[in-house]
Amino acid sequence: LLSKLPDVGVSIFTQMTLLAQETGAINLAQGFPDYDPPQELLEALARHALTPGHHQYAPMPGLPCLREAIATQVGRLHANAPAPDPATEITVTAGATEALYSVLAAVVRPGDEVLVFEPAYDLYGPAIRLQGGVPRYVRLPAPHFRPDWDAVRRVVSPRTRLVLVNTPHNPSGAIFTADDWHELARLLVGTDALVLSDEVYEHLVFDGAPRMSARQHPELRERSFVLSSFGKTYHATGWKVGYCIAPPALTAEVRRVHQFVTFAVSTPTQHALADVLTADTTDAHARGLAGFYQQKRDEFRGLLAGQGWDLLPVPGGYFQLARYDALSPAADLAFAQFLAREKGVAVVPVSAFYHDGFDDGLIRFCFAKHGETLAAAAARLR
Amino acid sequence: LLSKLPDVGVSIFTQMTLLAQETGAINLAQGFPDYDPPQELLEALARHALTPGHHQYAPMPGLPCLREAIATQVGRLHANAPAPDPATEITVTAGATEALYSVLAAVVRPGDEVLVFEPAYDLYGPAIRLQGGVPRYVRLPAPHFRPDWDAVRRVVSPRTRLVLVNTPHNPSGAIFTADDWHELARLLVGTDALVLSDEVYEHLVFDGAPRMSARQHPELRERSFVLSSFGKTYHATGWKVGYCIAPPALTAEVRRVHQFVTFAVSTPTQHALADVLTADTTDAHARGLAGFYQQKRDEFRGLLAGQGWDLLPVPGGYFQLARYDALSPAADLAFAQFLAREKGVAVVPVSAFYHDGFDDGLIRFCFAKHGETLAAAAARLR
Ligand SMILES: CSCCC(=O)C(=O)O
Ligand SMILES: CSCCC(=O)C(=O)O
Repeated sequence: LLSKLPDVGVSIFTQMTLLAQETGAINLAQGFPDYDPPQELLEALARHALTPGHHQYAPMPGLPCLREAIATQVGRLHANAPAPDPATEITVTAGATEALYSVLAAVVRPGDEVLVFEPAYDLYGPAIRLQGGVPRYVRLPAPHFRPDWDAVRRVVSPRTRLVLVNTPHNPSGAIFTADDWHELARLLVGTDALVLSDEVYEHLVFDGAPRMSARQHPELRERSFVLSSFGKTYHATGWKVGYCIAPPALTAEVRRVHQFVTFAVSTPTQHALADVLTADTTDAHARGLAGFYQQKRDEFRGLLAGQGWDLLPVPGGYFQLARYDALSPAADLAFAQFLAREKGVAVVPVSAFYHDGFDDGLIRFCFAKHGETLAAAAARLR
Repeated sequence: LLSKLPDVGVSIFTQMTLLAQETGAINLAQGFPDYDPPQELLEALARHALTPGHHQYAPMPGLPCLREAIATQVGRLHANAPAPDPATEITVTAGATEALYSVLAAVVRPGDEVLVFEPAYDLYGPAIRLQGGVPRYVRLPAPHFRPDWDAVRRVVSPRTRLVLVNTPHNPSGAIFTADDWHELARLLVGTDALVLSDEVYEHLVFDGAPRMSARQHPELRERSFVLSSFGKTYHATGWKVGYCIAPPALTAEVRRVHQFVTFAVSTPTQHALADVLTADTTDAHARGLAGFYQQKRDEFRGLLAGQGWDLLPVPGGYFQLARYDALSPAADLAFAQFLAREKGVAVVPVSAFYHDGFDDGLIRFCFAKHGETLAAAAARLR
């Protein structure tokens, strides 16, 4: 049996979660909270679970009430951008993962090049290659992981079909600034390259930095697929509901594929999310996330202080990158395994985010955890 | 924007459901029940919705408790086949749709041929083409829709990567017999072609006919992906949980792709299904489905009797194919639209199940409906 992805194994997130289970390590590896979604969301799901008539196929693009709720909230939060049209610009997907996959499957043709900033979420490369596409990597340098636009310019060509942006960035938390969006827009003028902007951590922007979506840049909006995830926003990574916002012509292409990839998303779950989103007319939940996670970041950094870690800056997201000062040479996978086995804390080696295994000696902690979990992990690491 | 699927629009199921909504027609088009899942399943979902700790990512291949429950039930129901190993042979997917898609994406390489029996579920062709694969169609002739194995033999070649089987068959209800499986196995001896057996209607086999899975043929089992769906089995098409059973080497390939297509499936929903499946130690629910749906079939056929319909035999599944005697020429789409608009009953034109729009003048009714719905539809059709 010839594999189409011979070099792809079980993802690092699954591997490290399994290692955590085997070793009893505290799991700061895979990116998910160890707390539950808001109680009103749980109650909404329980209510819809018991509602007759809410158990058959949702419409392929998503329940109208959920798409309307998304459009309304996005309209409020994306200043200077028109609210998306729920009928023609929003598609509800089985998590942002399915949105990413469906966009890639919809637009990447064999031989097309896709620009990927590394470190990158591990699915980007293989999902591009499954379409016959060619990932072209541009490395973001530590500790700030900001794009070098000259380097980007050297890689963009008429074969570039898509540019993949992830802001706030996993694993580094780096955030695209207005200047970055501007540079990207300038670069793409006159080309027909598209943009896939993975914004699943959109609300997790710290220290008062401005948050900016690809949708807020008028020229980029027209060529962008913007993804977000209720998993991240509502502490419900296991519910697997995300969405894709894109102009009508691009949305039509995503839906063409989405209808064959999953067809539709859980009806009772969509109803529950629609209720909670609709009720939150001031976006209090979304607006509260930056403060909530900034405090976790600060708490975790405080707990690790004085332990000999080089803690990289964390402008957004829910991960802390760190280097262990005394460690040489860089061997992050071995170090991550050592931490799980000997210290009882599971982390992700950042080399897993590079197609060529580039190893800068960095590991990633997820701080989307209860204070006690973070404290217990820090105590074990001491 | 060059589309990868320029000829693919919104699926016929979505189109006819929209037409039903517009016209107020009774929707016997898209295949879903108008009754709810069993009460204990709804209560299980409500319970898990409120259970702390059940809201983050499930393991990528599915919750262990659900995979074990599936293995146990399948072990009981598939006589003469060993129970599948939940660790290495079962993958829980976002509906059978995602299972289908992920299998195709995992094994079909550009230029590979895939044998498809027509009429065929509308996603098969486009999903094959998205992989660069070439569908090779073999037509099943009305009214029995049995494969002509000589015709199949003429299409199978060393380029055949996969044979797609669907039994009981949508839309016709035709069932692969032991002889059919045997013919298929004989044909594939010495090739490395694989089999994708879509068995989502597996329990809906009428008139005491034997039910037989690809897994029950020892030579085929080794090369088969077998799909099923809790949507069909538990009247929960909107929950979007299905699964794929395949030998370890094939399962490894599906999971490689599944992890990038959706990663995992709703955690609370999997817990609910696991509870209900585990509790049903006699498979009472699954075993009861044949009788339940056979009665609906008979009821619906009785209601249509004397109306001038040529009702084709329905050995399984939940669809009734029919031809309107007085109608000529065959123009099933126009007739389906007429029925929705003028008679108030939405159906699916069977030409939508052929890549070339072959039109045999047949329409498809879904009889997975309350008796009153079926009676009301029949009254409107009179
Ligand atoms: C789908 S498992 C990975 C979760 C995640 O976003 C991460 O850990 O980076
Ligand atoms: C996913 S919509 C189609 C449902 C179905 O199985 C059918 O109508 O054939």
